[in-house]
Amino acid sequence: MIIEQTKKNKTFNGETCYYKHKSVVTGTSMAFSTFEPRPKEEIENAIIWLSGLTCTEENFITKSGVQKLLAGTNTMVICPDTSPRGLELDKEHESYDFGSGASFYLNATTSGYKDHYKMYDYVSIELIEILKKNFNVKKISIMGHSMGGHGALVLALNEINLFSSVSAFSPIVNPSECSWGRKAFKGYLGEDSDEYSKYDATLLIKNKNLRSDKILIDQGLADEFLEKELLTDNFIQVCNDAGQELEVNYREGYDHSYFFISTFLEDHITHHLNILNQ
Amino acid sequence: MIIEQTKKNKTFNGETCYYKHKSVVTGTSMAFSTFEPRPKEEIENAIIWLSGLTCTEENFITKSGVQKLLAGTNTMVICPDTSPRGLELDKEHESYDFGSGASFYLNATTSGYKDHYKMYDYVSIELIEILKKNFNVKKISIMGHSMGGHGALVLALNEINLFSSVSAFSPIVNPSECSWGRKAFKGYLGEDSDEYSKYDATLLIKNKNLRSDKILIDQGLADEFLEKELLTDNFIQVCNDAGQELEVNYREGYDHSYFFISTFLEDHITHHLNILNQ
Repeated sequence: MIIEQTKKNKTFNGETCYYKHKSVVTGTSMAFSTFEPRPKEEIENAIIWLSGLTCTEENFITKSGVQKLLAGTNTMVICPDTSPRGLELDKEHESYDFGSGASFYLNATTSGYKDHYKMYDYVSIELIEILKKNFNVKKISIMGHSMGGHGALVLALNEINLFSSVSAFSPIVNPSECSWGRKAFKGYLGEDSDEYSKYDATLLIKNKNLRSDKILIDQGLADEFLEKELLTDNFIQVCNDAGQELEVNYREGYDHSYFFISTFLEDHITHHLNILNQ
Repeated sequence: MIIEQTKKNKTFNGETCYYKHKSVVTGTSMAFSTFEPRPKEEIENAIIWLSGLTCTEENFITKSGVQKLLAGTNTMVICPDTSPRGLELDKEHESYDFGSGASFYLNATTSGYKDHYKMYDYVSIELIEILKKNFNVKKISIMGHSMGGHGALVLALNEINLFSSVSAFSPIVNPSECSWGRKAFKGYLGEDSDEYSKYDATLLIKNKNLRSDKILIDQGLADEFLEKELLTDNFIQVCNDAGQELEVNYREGYDHSYFFISTFLEDHITHHLNILNQ
């Protein structure tokens, strides 16, 4: 896979890098950022970070403080953009919660979108291939925030063996039942509810897509989206019923922002490093 | 002083906040951000952070990771915007290195600018008053990056007793001798070279404005501006000649970015906390 490094900045004795490449899956140019704590030949593992609505490959790598936490380890982080770019599909740029910056990490089936908005395959096939071929990575974990937390859970519950561990901040755990999710599913998947259940973490658990490792979630209690969009309790309920090990940390006073993520990121990185290095 | 909190986000058990207020000094609305690690009544000290060209009150507080380093301490950080806003002065918005976002933290004397671009007084009088009256802060240190590193050094070398300690990342140490500085000085101060010497850290040391505490500077050796704009060695030379204690850490491979700042910020915060808590 040919990837082009567009920028690098030495950080905590490693490198924060930006790349772009022609994606076979999306048919567009795609961008991602990385933090590579050691030279490529010394890197063994990767954590994929999926960002939320309106974000790009830049938000997490500039705001989270992840470099300090991975400095000196054998584990890189890779942060793909949140959608294909450079297209002019119907309604693609009209709202913050659909189209560009809002892929929901699924494979679209609706007209126009089905040719490009295949972010599920982009992450689970193409990005994995890049990690294995271009970075020589062996084990991979996945995490994300909000829409990206949804993406991380859905990918990890469908591709059980592809990912060593999964965690999420403020994830949309039951998109079939919230307005963000319903709008996205209708726009990308039409009316086919069989398709919906592939991309809904709560339904996946209900349908017994279980993991043997513990799922870690942090959720702020002052998060303005908790009640109407995130629906964390629905996920807790089905995990309890199905016997899926789950740790949900509700955090008093914390909201939906990167300030929340930065506060508890160390716990998540530790969770992933422990499993990746087993 | 009436200040209005426009936003707050719980972070590392403290609060990241944004404020605005009517400035008597600049005659405009001014904005600043803070991280307040504990409730106001438990805060004793503050570190002022001055940002560089093109920045606002947002860059440092979102990108540096300072919250993790100040969490639980008695010391807040306050980050003012880099210039007055909302004006339409001659040439104010034409270039990235003059006018809005590029105040150089001096008191302008040229037509138009002299009524508003008084950032030296804004920081050394009005911001100090806000810290003392609104936050009940006792001791104050100052630091900054690039143009803000210049501001921190100039303020600390002129107002010896106002600041407990000073440090800088990639500061413009000798603005009279570089093109960024010359352009700014000409635009804000005209041709009066007596004025220039008040705002040039290298000339201030030469003129025996010395501090009893050690000045700490970190400078990346891959910084594209080092040779032509920052001129670090000039400052080292005059500090040596004048007997000013100075620690300059040249950092191999690091550039001018916030990734560099985040890497070595802990050393600077430790430097300030040690002196503030003496």
